[in-house]
Amino acid sequence: MNTRQRLEAMGARRPAPVGMAMRTAPAAQSLPSWPQRASFCPPGMEARGGKCVSSACAPQAHPLIDAVRNAELAEYDRTVRERFDAIVPTLKEIAGLQHEAGFEQRAQQIAGERLGFTLPEAVLADAWITTLDMRALYGHSVLQTYHWLARDFTARWDGHAEAQAVERFFIECGFHEVDISSCADGRLKGLLQFVLRLPHQAVHRRKSYAGALFDVELNVKHWTETELRRFREGVPTTSDAGTRYLKIAVYHFSSSDPEHEGCAAHGSDDTRAAQAALDRLAAFRTAIENGFCCGASVATLLIGVDTDTDAIRVHVPDADGAMRTDCAVDNLAVYRQTAGMAASEARWRLDTAIDEAAREHGRSAPESGMRRLIERLLTNNLSQIDYVCAQHNGRYADIGHAERFINIGDGFDEVFLRNLAYFGHLHTIEEGAADMDVGVKILSGLYVARGLPIPIAIHHRYDAQVPGSRERAVARCRRVKSAIETRYPHVAKEGLFIAA
Amino acid sequence: MNTRQRLEAMGARRPAPVGMAMRTAPAAQSLPSWPQRASFCPPGMEARGGKCVSSACAPQAHPLIDAVRNAELAEYDRTVRERFDAIVPTLKEIAGLQHEAGFEQRAQQIAGERLGFTLPEAVLADAWITTLDMRALYGHSVLQTYHWLARDFTARWDGHAEAQAVERFFIECGFHEVDISSCADGRLKGLLQFVLRLPHQAVHRRKSYAGALFDVELNVKHWTETELRRFREGVPTTSDAGTRYLKIAVYHFSSSDPEHEGCAAHGSDDTRAAQAALDRLAAFRTAIENGFCCGASVATLLIGVDTDTDAIRVHVPDADGAMRTDCAVDNLAVYRQTAGMAASEARWRLDTAIDEAAREHGRSAPESGMRRLIERLLTNNLSQIDYVCAQHNGRYADIGHAERFINIGDGFDEVFLRNLAYFGHLHTIEEGAADMDVGVKILSGLYVARGLPIPIAIHHRYDAQVPGSRERAVARCRRVKSAIETRYPHVAKEGLFIAA
Repeated sequence: MNTRQRLEAMGARRPAPVGMAMRTAPAAQSLPSWPQRASFCPPGMEARGGKCVSSACAPQAHPLIDAVRNAELAEYDRTVRERFDAIVPTLKEIAGLQHEAGFEQRAQQIAGERLGFTLPEAVLADAWITTLDMRALYGHSVLQTYHWLARDFTARWDGHAEAQAVERFFIECGFHEVDISSCADGRLKGLLQFVLRLPHQAVHRRKSYAGALFDVELNVKHWTETELRRFREGVPTTSDAGTRYLKIAVYHFSSSDPEHEGCAAHGSDDTRAAQAALDRLAAFRTAIENGFCCGASVATLLIGVDTDTDAIRVHVPDADGAMRTDCAVDNLAVYRQTAGMAASEARWRLDTAIDEAAREHGRSAPESGMRRLIERLLTNNLSQIDYVCAQHNGRYADIGHAERFINIGDGFDEVFLRNLAYFGHLHTIEEGAADMDVGVKILSGLYVARGLPIPIAIHHRYDAQVPGSRERAVARCRRVKSAIETRYPHVAKEGLFIAA
Repeated sequence: MNTRQRLEAMGARRPAPVGMAMRTAPAAQSLPSWPQRASFCPPGMEARGGKCVSSACAPQAHPLIDAVRNAELAEYDRTVRERFDAIVPTLKEIAGLQHEAGFEQRAQQIAGERLGFTLPEAVLADAWITTLDMRALYGHSVLQTYHWLARDFTARWDGHAEAQAVERFFIECGFHEVDISSCADGRLKGLLQFVLRLPHQAVHRRKSYAGALFDVELNVKHWTETELRRFREGVPTTSDAGTRYLKIAVYHFSSSDPEHEGCAAHGSDDTRAAQAALDRLAAFRTAIENGFCCGASVATLLIGVDTDTDAIRVHVPDADGAMRTDCAVDNLAVYRQTAGMAASEARWRLDTAIDEAAREHGRSAPESGMRRLIERLLTNNLSQIDYVCAQHNGRYADIGHAERFINIGDGFDEVFLRNLAYFGHLHTIEEGAADMDVGVKILSGLYVARGLPIPIAIHHRYDAQVPGSRERAVARCRRVKSAIETRYPHVAKEGLFIAA
């Protein structure tokens, strides 16, 4: 497809739905896998071997990257993808055997070997009546794979020591709690572990909402809980330590196809997305300052993510903490500038970029703790830019949606990967209907059009120290499941209830 | 109807719905007003002039009652009832004029004079097309009356000084916050101001749930907010004051018709209702003790209300704060014992009743602050028992449901009166469906059967200090309205949106 044909196709496409960008037509032609969509080569990219390769991409050459972690993440990425990618070929093979003798045993054997779990016996046993219910097997397999990966991850990776070190670093920067709200878009599902390189155990409060429009009232409650623990228990800092609660909002955009693959909750308009998140941060800060006496306040930070390259854009606060949508450090530019330098020179250059962003707009520099945190985030993200260079030629082939399932409720960060799941933080479908509608619409385009169900994982945490909390969490999962069935009767689905 | 006929009729009646007791058949024969149901004379009552009068009732003779406040409440009660009772005759008169010349002006004039507000012009203007939409006028009138009474009350009664005195008293008893959760049943709508004689401004946290089954997780959040304010601001007591958060749960029962007019969330079984509330109190206390370190705890108290007489039953905690369903002071018995005594003797008798309840069950006496609070609550309630004697011959004629409308969302304590409204605390219909279903079922029996709509007032508070809070509260009201329309499409309704 040449540029003209592509533009014509784009013109004919139906507009992106409220909430998130989507492209249904290309995805509907084949089962999603990575890469699943024919893309195009935007400016700064060149076609090489049928793929678009960033002409500015020099993988493994950057002096500040964490090559060991990049290799671990690549292995993790590969494992997760392989697990999910094995589902369709395995089920196809099982489908081909359904009329043979000893089918049930054979099917379970194949599933055990290739997928690592068994299939529901009743579905296999009923195959002779009409035909094998592939939708049920598919939904079951996706959610079992998810569950298996979560268990595997918890057993394999103990990020405790690393998380403690990061928490200490946050406190050194003056922040006793770092709370991140990003967009529900599945392309941000790897935000913490890949894009920002922060262990999820160090970021206790992380919630996703369509358009990153987090709930101010709920956030005030979270702030209250954190502060009470400081006052009562001196954890993580005592009340007189002078540290603050830091709220980070993360919006996203697409550098390759900004008008279609950005955040459609804001009409795929970067500036609007950034401004909306900035407004929400300001509302939260004002709520704390007005609602509590004695100098109560919070720090805020705004970050943008280019979901095509995973490069971040950090909006530099001035000395008073104020930010602007146009005053930011573009980390892809920093990466390109520093790729060939010695480590010390690259560090100096990155440091200078923060000052330059402030100076360019006639603003004061951020306070030292905030500045140190920004330096760390930019440095961490250089590893991810390099990772995308090495693993994806500098730009993901699936720049649009390709989520495998919907995950709602409380976050489930034991499994994380870009485009793995559409995640919405919600306690009721009634309140979270806007988020859920978008998720169902996106995954309907990806799956239902092809006769497959949309797997939905509902997850609510409980506190083992609160009597009845587990039972109430289970009841909440069941209630949300029932509300989904009521709201989307036409969408086939399978619910997995995890309470952890 | 003699006793035998009554028992036969009761046997044929359909069982009470989950959530609350109801009787639909008698109510369906006439428009509700006080008294609206033919009742019967239970043991301890005698028929006098077609009414049941308590043989133990000696109004105005009790030495410990607040006669001035009783007179004020009687006046308030009369005003509220008159306002609501004026609606039907006024609308009937207006209906009779609908084909006359100058109808619209005449109707508005009558409404203004008798009801104190105007009617929707569009409804009056459209009368000539088919007929006057009485349902719309009725729903509008009920909710306007409610709104008018709320404004009038706020302007007329300033309970600020009284509330401050009561808060000081709570602190003297060792409680820096008193939090009351009762059943959503409309017969408890006058709980604070009538039954317990506490200014609502002194009880900041008051929420109703079907069966008094309050939300433990939400309550932990409220505790957190209260404690943080103590630590940060020293309000209402400093963190080292040794005072506690007191959670009171209030269940209810019917002494006249215990098997039908009690709390049907618990099968109209007093002991079950009391035990369920006790279990919830224990869960809350355990949640605080396990979830927070350094000796965090709360005090709890269980109170039962006889909705026929408004007499309370206070379950006396032992020295460790433990309570039992069978160890309680019955305040109706105290009233009868003390009615003829001198004030000092009556006080001594009331005081003794607390010790006797504990001793009878071989338990230790409550700690002194709790004991002082219980004495005050019992004394306050003597005034209400006397009030029911004076105004209702010792026992309400409408021992069953006769709510005028449904009130959901955050509480709206500016209008309070027994059986005025069915009140459910909820943020979403999805979570509060059980409470709402019961309310709709009860009011369907009272109104829809007669062709009238169920007026529903949705009310959410906002914090003027939090940016966008008002807009979000309005959006929440609209969202709840829409959820009601989806869940109960067959029930005609009119929503009033109040955000205060």
